[in-house]
This record gives sequence, structure tokens and C-alpha cells, in this order.
Amino acid sequence: MSIDLEIARAATLRPIAEIAAKAGIPDAALEPYGKYKAKIGLDFVASARADRPRGKLVLVTGINPTPAGEGKTTTTVGLGDALNHIGKRAMICLREPSLGPCFGVKGGAAGGGHAQVVPMEDINLHFTGDFHAITAANNLLAAMIDNHIYWGNALGIDARRITWRRALDMNDRALRSVVGSLGGTANGFPREDGFDIVVASEVMAAFCLAHDLADLQRRLGRIIVASTRDGKPVTAADLKADGAMAVLLRDALAPNLVQTLAGSPALVHGGPFANIAHGCNSVMATTLGLHLSDVVVTEAGFGADLGAEKFLDIKCRLAGLSPDACVIVATIRALKMHGGVAKADLGREDVDAVKRGVANLARHVENIKKFGLPPVVALNRFTADTEAEIRAVQEAMAALGTEAILCTHWSDGAAGTVELAHAVMRRLDAKEAAFQPLYPDAIPLAEKIGTIAREIYRARDVAIPDSVLAKLKRFEAMGFGAAPICIAKTQYSFSADPTAMGAPVDHVLPVRDVRLLAGAGFVVAITGDVMTMPGLPRVPAAETIRLDEQGRIEGLF
Amino acid sequence: MSIDLEIARAATLRPIAEIAAKAGIPDAALEPYGKYKAKIGLDFVASARADRPRGKLVLVTGINPTPAGEGKTTTTVGLGDALNHIGKRAMICLREPSLGPCFGVKGGAAGGGHAQVVPMEDINLHFTGDFHAITAANNLLAAMIDNHIYWGNALGIDARRITWRRALDMNDRALRSVVGSLGGTANGFPREDGFDIVVASEVMAAFCLAHDLADLQRRLGRIIVASTRDGKPVTAADLKADGAMAVLLRDALAPNLVQTLAGSPALVHGGPFANIAHGCNSVMATTLGLHLSDVVVTEAGFGADLGAEKFLDIKCRLAGLSPDACVIVATIRALKMHGGVAKADLGREDVDAVKRGVANLARHVENIKKFGLPPVVALNRFTADTEAEIRAVQEAMAALGTEAILCTHWSDGAAGTVELAHAVMRRLDAKEAAFQPLYPDAIPLAEKIGTIAREIYRARDVAIPDSVLAKLKRFEAMGFGAAPICIAKTQYSFSADPTAMGAPVDHVLPVRDVRLLAGAGFVVAITGDVMTMPGLPRVPAAETIRLDEQGRIEGLF
Repeated sequence: MSIDLEIARAATLRPIAEIAAKAGIPDAALEPYGKYKAKIGLDFVASARADRPRGKLVLVTGINPTPAGEGKTTTTVGLGDALNHIGKRAMICLREPSLGPCFGVKGGAAGGGHAQVVPMEDINLHFTGDFHAITAANNLLAAMIDNHIYWGNALGIDARRITWRRALDMNDRALRSVVGSLGGTANGFPREDGFDIVVASEVMAAFCLAHDLADLQRRLGRIIVASTRDGKPVTAADLKADGAMAVLLRDALAPNLVQTLAGSPALVHGGPFANIAHGCNSVMATTLGLHLSDVVVTEAGFGADLGAEKFLDIKCRLAGLSPDACVIVATIRALKMHGGVAKADLGREDVDAVKRGVANLARHVENIKKFGLPPVVALNRFTADTEAEIRAVQEAMAALGTEAILCTHWSDGAAGTVELAHAVMRRLDAKEAAFQPLYPDAIPLAEKIGTIAREIYRARDVAIPDSVLAKLKRFEAMGFGAAPICIAKTQYSFSADPTAMGAPVDHVLPVRDVRLLAGAGFVVAITGDVMTMPGLPRVPAAETIRLDEQGRIEGLF
Repeated sequence: MSIDLEIARAATLRPIAEIAAKAGIPDAALEPYGKYKAKIGLDFVASARADRPRGKLVLVTGINPTPAGEGKTTTTVGLGDALNHIGKRAMICLREPSLGPCFGVKGGAAGGGHAQVVPMEDINLHFTGDFHAITAANNLLAAMIDNHIYWGNALGIDARRITWRRALDMNDRALRSVVGSLGGTANGFPREDGFDIVVASEVMAAFCLAHDLADLQRRLGRIIVASTRDGKPVTAADLKADGAMAVLLRDALAPNLVQTLAGSPALVHGGPFANIAHGCNSVMATTLGLHLSDVVVTEAGFGADLGAEKFLDIKCRLAGLSPDACVIVATIRALKMHGGVAKADLGREDVDAVKRGVANLARHVENIKKFGLPPVVALNRFTADTEAEIRAVQEAMAALGTEAILCTHWSDGAAGTVELAHAVMRRLDAKEAAFQPLYPDAIPLAEKIGTIAREIYRARDVAIPDSVLAKLKRFEAMGFGAAPICIAKTQYSFSADPTAMGAPVDHVLPVRDVRLLAGAGFVVAITGDVMTMPGLPRVPAAETIRLDEQGRIEGLF
């Protein structure tokens, strides 16, 4: 049994109504899902947003991820716990994990050690059913497209130009590319199709950016699923699918409340991919959290070049949020990998490698400042880290005027992040934030891509083929010129080359394609191979997951 | 707004803990899902089955369905309500509705009028997520099959002989027949595949027949998904998928408690197809209900030739249940259709047509007696029914020694089924039941098919091609000779010809194919076209389903 699971099982959870009461949520607003999970009613969300003051917003992001691991989720949980520990009212906002990766290699996504959200097995499996609801909405739309064509195609959909794909919350490479509607007249017109994992569905992105139920239904209606032979877009509203999709998502849109091992309230809601989508938990949860607490601690997917940039330029821009500080998580081990050390050699002290690798961290720190936010570095400590290695990071950060705080929440829980919590509070109390998105709404879409590439990725240039530029012009002509950009890029590097670690310079960002996600409200720029349906490994985790004789789950983590 | 929905919305629901307490279920055994739904913990199910006396079991079944409608679910609800009304402790056990048909033509499946289970919108949509869990388990197994082949196919699976299909809870004809794993090396080996609606998945059947979690895991392991080139079966256990599938289903296996409009407790759990599977709610729910009440009222899919026969020969046999009485639901309208009247002409009195059509009902009455059960006919009254028509039915039933009771639960609730409740109690109090399945375990599989065809369908003969007989012999050689038979046949007739209404004679039952469902534990005999993935109609209900300005659901019913 894993240590994470052992710790989670040993914990005594408090009834969710008690956690809710502490967070200022009355019983009447709770829809319990078992004893330790609850959804928070949409009416209460609306009234809290209208009536209560808004707290501060702190984003937890990271350096470019490496196989060494960084611990962004554990730091988010640890920071929230520590803020509560020092007497602040803090709410933690996380993404919901996808079911698919649980059965592959990834394992759970509910934190670890003494910095976990619980009940971790529920959260990692079906939880409150949100992803199943999103899957159903996605696939109802797909069924209605083929059904529309089957019954005469009054809208004139060009079957070669259907862009809407089906979805499952499963790692299943066999579904990436299929030909459907085979088998004769009764089954429709055969065409190429495919499935994405549900976190890559535009329904997920629209769900996470919706301000309320009415906004969600409008966004769903705007989703473009295909075009006619003469290029006219066909939307979910044209197919009259938006209403039923919203009905399927009504209960799911209510944020989910759980607790950390330390008893902090946590809203775990929504979970879009961080490449093809914006990689943050729902606007519903974040805004609710802000009106229930002094400080919301939330995280964004991948490193700060993708996660923080999208959180700030997409989520905060579209939701009217103004964050107040940003924590950047790093580990000595990961910095050594950015400095060129192989994973097998991480056990040896290598101060020079740390000094080289810290360039990755330093660039993220500089980038965060470009958004007008004060950064704090959280150095997530591992036992093998040496004093000299730690000093190398702290000195580099001091040179940038940024604190780098050692954290030991994995082993010590809230006590291990108290210093980080104080550092964050210093930034908040000093009111240092002057948030502004990286680029204004009004500049051309191509220019927005160029701005992100140059300012955040530090690319020398952007390569956009004429055909792709023409698509961007078409999106602008369609009225989507003000949309923010969501870049799908490797998470392992500032550049589009996943092997270029540290702080690569002089690279060119190649934009292969662009897509308009009209329902989500952003334009995706694709800069490499984007995997929207993972596969299972040679020996999937599923093979060792089972129930023991007491009916308890074995092998999930 | 439909009348059903209007009535449901006007109802004041009681907190589910109150309903549970009335049914003898302590708070500690409840896992609430919102305020009006709860799962009942597996530990409590086990202890109730061990410690509490077992009540009586009453099956509600019907004549062969017609477009006129019979009202089996409303009668089940009405009878349960009336039994509680007259001072018995009754539990209602129903199947969970499938999400797919809600968006097609069917509408909801939670009863109607004043005989409904509520909250009806939840029950008809995601409910407690059971079907989503079953979908995930089905599709994890599918992914593990293709993944196994992808990584070298150590088990030697013959890709042409994979019988396991993927599943969704959606009406989507485009997925009936697909070719998957297209797109190159990274996506696997292309092969023919397809999706069934989840109620047709063997996981659903195994789930509904499982006695407990350990039994479920064993059943899942036995599921045969493919064979090798030399015909050796490959199971879910061979693929090591059974454990993870059981983990996905763990929470789902706990029965769901809701209430009727009259406040009766109802267990709504599981919902396998009634053609390719056995069409009853879960063994978990039925056995729990029996140990919580004086009388369990439950229903089975389609008419008694399919639903009751399978309930008795499959579910009761495999679960060791011994039912005590059987209610057969009919309407004057439907009997007139069996007597040859067109739907458009049902408004006119036609006593002769009733007299002709009653032959269908009479045969079902005779059949039920063959199982050693006392039948009671419930005549579900419509306003246009005339006294002379009703008398024709009652006289025909009296000639068989069977009571035919007029019911008006749709408009009157429990008061409209009090007389039926008394008639049922007379049968129970007289201890008339001497239940025995139609055929013993030990006879050959082909002979079991013949017995059902002759005794229940009144076929002159059964036509089984030699190739199909050879398959049955193979199943016997594999050790499944004792399995019961599940016949997939049209529900509209005793025969395999859907247009042969009334009580057809001299027909031959053609068995086209047989399948071994080793996990569910029965052999399916297919006698016609079996649709395992419905399509959407020209104007799907989904087009008019949406949220109103208060966020309430419109158009679902």
C-alpha cells in the first residue's frame, strides 16, 4: 500500500456539513454526495457572489515539469492548510482528476503525503459524476449531428467538415481514429470520426469558464461542430442541442466541496486539459471561493508558461478576476534536471547543475512579474537536497528580489508551509499586485500569439503558415477577434521542443494549426503534436487495482 | 408542461432519511445523494439479509405491449403505495431508466400521474451515476483488450473473434458499427467494433445478478471477451481487468433509495435490457427489500412471456428467490389492439375486439400458473373504457379462476389500487404459491429453449440450425450446461413475428444464434433482429429539452 493511501486511510474525516459551516456555507445550500462530499447549490453561489466581500486570489504554478516531479497540487493544499493554520480563512480550489489516467500510469491527482484532499478514492474515481455528465453532453451533441444528417441534413452539414468528436473518460488509443456509421442504410452515412478523453472536450472548457447556468447554455449553443459545403459554421444551437446539453450539466455545474487532511475546505471542480484547453478549475468554484474566504489558493496545469499564462490571460480575463500573488513551485531535483542531470543521477549533490537549472525558474519569476503579480517561490523539499543546493536557489531568487521558501508539507502537513503562508501574506498585505493580462483584447489574433511567444516563451519569432493566418483572419471576420489565445505546446520546455530544458533562447515557435472554440471563447494555437486521447501503458495500473476482502480499493495509487 | 411533470413538481418530498427510517434503514447506512436520494451501504445490506426476516415477493408483469400502453410501472408504484396505505410494510423495486431514450422518443421511466417515483428528473437523468459507472467498467475492459493486443498480444487473442463491444448510455446509431484503431501504428491494429447502449452490456446483467461485491468481481472475471485462434475463450480475468472493473462498480452496487409521491420507499437499482438480458432490477435491491418489508413489489420488462419468464427462470433461480404472487397488467385499449383494432379507432367501444384480445391476457395468466404462482389481473382503467368492455375481461378471467381488478392509480394514487392490494394480499395470505422454475438446471440447453418456446410461447416447434446447436454443445462442454436461457425475441408477440398479436398458435421459433454470457451466468438465444443500440428519431426529444429562466428542466417528459 502506498504511503499516500496509508495516510489518507488513517485520517478521520469530518462530516462535510461541518466543513461547510466553517466555510460559511449553510446546510440548506448543500447537496450531499455521501458523507464527505457535497455540491453547493447554484442559488447559494449566486447569492454569495452578490452579497459577500471578495477575498484575495493566489495562483500556484510551477517550473516546467520534469520526471523528477514538482508537487504543485501538494503545495496548493499545503499552502491552503497553512493559511488556515495561521488564522486566515483560506479556500483551496483544485481541478477534478480524470478517471482515464487512474488506470494508466499516472495514479491519482488529489495531492499526496500530508497534503491531500479527501476522500481521495472518491475524488479519483467517479467523484460527484461531473465528468460523466460532461461526457454525456459531448456525446449527445455528436449523436445529434449524425442524426441530423441521417434524417435529411436540412442544415447542409458537410460530413467531411465535422470537427466535433465524441468523448470518453478513458485512456483508449483504439478510439483515436475510427470510421463510424458503418453497416448499411439504417446506421447512417459512414464518415471519419474519433474520440477524445473528456478533459479535452470543448464542453469541459465551456463548463469551466461559465459564469452561471444561463451563461453555460449560451456557450454550449455557440459551439461550432461543423461547417456547410460553402464554409458556413454549424453550431450546437443550430442543431437545437444546447438545451439538452445544459440540462445534462445542470447539477454538475454546482461546485464540489471536500476537505483536506487538515480539515481545510476545498472546492474541486472541473478539469480541462492544459494544452488544448486552459487547464484551470471552474470559474464557478473560484468565484464562489473568493466570496467565502480571505484567500483562495488555486493551481493551474503544467508549468507557468502554459498554466499561469492561460489562467491569467484566459480564465482571469474572461471571468473578470484579478489575482493578487503567484507561488511558483520548484524542487532541487527538477532544477538539476533542467541543469542537465539525468534522473538516475539526482541523488548526488550538484550545485552547478542547480545553478544552471535555476534559469528555468528565474524566467518564470520574471514572466509572472510581467502580469503585475508578486511571485513567491516554494521550494518543495526532498530529503536528499543539500544546504548548498538550496542556497544556490535562494541566492538566485534573492538577486531577482523574490523570496524562495522551503516547504515540507508532504511530510509535515500545514506546519511545513507556514513560512510560505507568511511570505504570501506579506505580498498580499503589501498590496503589490497590479494585474494586467499580457495583451489587450483588441489586437489581431496573430499578434496575440506572437506576444505570448516572445514575452513568455522568449521565442525569437513565430512561424505561422499563410493558411493558418487566413484561418485567424476568418475567425476575426466571424466576430471572434477579441478572443484570447490558448497555446497547445509541450509542457516540458519554454519552446516547442520538449528536449530543450532550462531557459532556451533563439527558438522559433511553429504554429501548425488554429482552432476556434467559440463555446469556450478562445482560439487554440497548436504548436506540436497534441495528444487528446492517451493510451494505456504495457502494464496498466488497472491490472493491479482491485478490491480486498473488506471491499476496500487496492492499487489505485 | 406534461401532467406527470406538473404533478411531480407540485409534490412535497420528504427528506430521504425520513423515508429510510420508515423502512427500517438507520441513518448510518445511508449515503445521501442530494436531499431526496440515497445509496444504502453494502454492509447494511449484508446485515439486513442475515438478521431480518424475509417478506413476500410480488412480480408485476403485463400482456404483450402495444402502442396503446399498459402502465406496468405505474401499477407497480400504485400497488406498493396501496399496500402501505392498507397498513402493510411494502417496498417497491424498480429498474433505473436509461439516459439514452430520454433524448429520443420514450420520455422518462419513473411512472406517471399520481403513481410516480421522485425526484423524477434526477431518476431519469444521471441519478446516482450507476449507469455511468457501468459504462466506465465496460469501456475499461474494451480498452484493456485493444491495449493487450497493442503491446504484443501475449494471450493470443484473435482480433477477428473479439465479441466484447464498447458501450455508451446514448441513442446513437452512428456507433453501432465502427472500425477502430485507425490512423497508424501508434493507434493499434484496425478492427471492426461497435457500441451498445449500456443497458445491453453484460456488465449491466452481471451487476444486476450479483449477490454482493465479491460475487460481482468473480462474475466480471468470468466475462468472455474474445477467443484465441484455436477457439480458447479469453476472459476479463485473463486480461486482469476484473479488479479495476469491480472498483469502478463498488459504490454503484449499493442500492438506491427514493420515494413515491405517496411517500413509499422505493429501491431503484440496475436496469438491464429485457431482450438481450433479463430485464429486472438488481438482486441487491430485491433481496434488501425483502428483508426490510412485508411485501416487495417489483416489475420486469416487456410482457410476461419475456419479462416474467426471465424474472422467474433467471433472476429468481440464480438468486434463490421464491416469489409469492404475480400481477398481470392489461388495459382495455391494449386488449382491443390485440383483438385487431387500430390505434386510431381505440376511442370506440368494441366488446368483440376485447373478447378476441383477451386471449393474449388469458395465455399469460395460464403461463404464470405453470410457475406455481397465483396471478391477479390489474386492469389499468382509462376514461373511455366502457362497462361492457370491462365486464368482458372480468368474465374471461373469472372463467380462469383469476380476479381482474380495476385500477385508477394514475388519477387517484394509492386509493385507486387499494382493491388490487387487497386482492394481492388474499393470494399471499392464502399461501397459494408453490414456485418452481419452468425447467430444471440439468437438461440440455437446447431442450431449455424448446421448453420455453412450447410452454410459454406455445410454439409448435423450435428451429435451431446445426451450427447453433454445435455452439450450445460447446457451451455445455465449457461447463455452462446448467445456465438458464435468456431469449431475445420481439416483445410484441408470443411468437417471433411482431405482427402476430393476440394468442398466436402453430408458429415456429427460429433461433438464429446463441451467446454465452458467462459473467451474467446465462445463455442468450437470439430469435430475430436485436437492436442493442437505438437511434434518435427525426425530431428527438432533446431538441425541446432545455432549462427555463429559473434553471428548471423543460421538455424532459
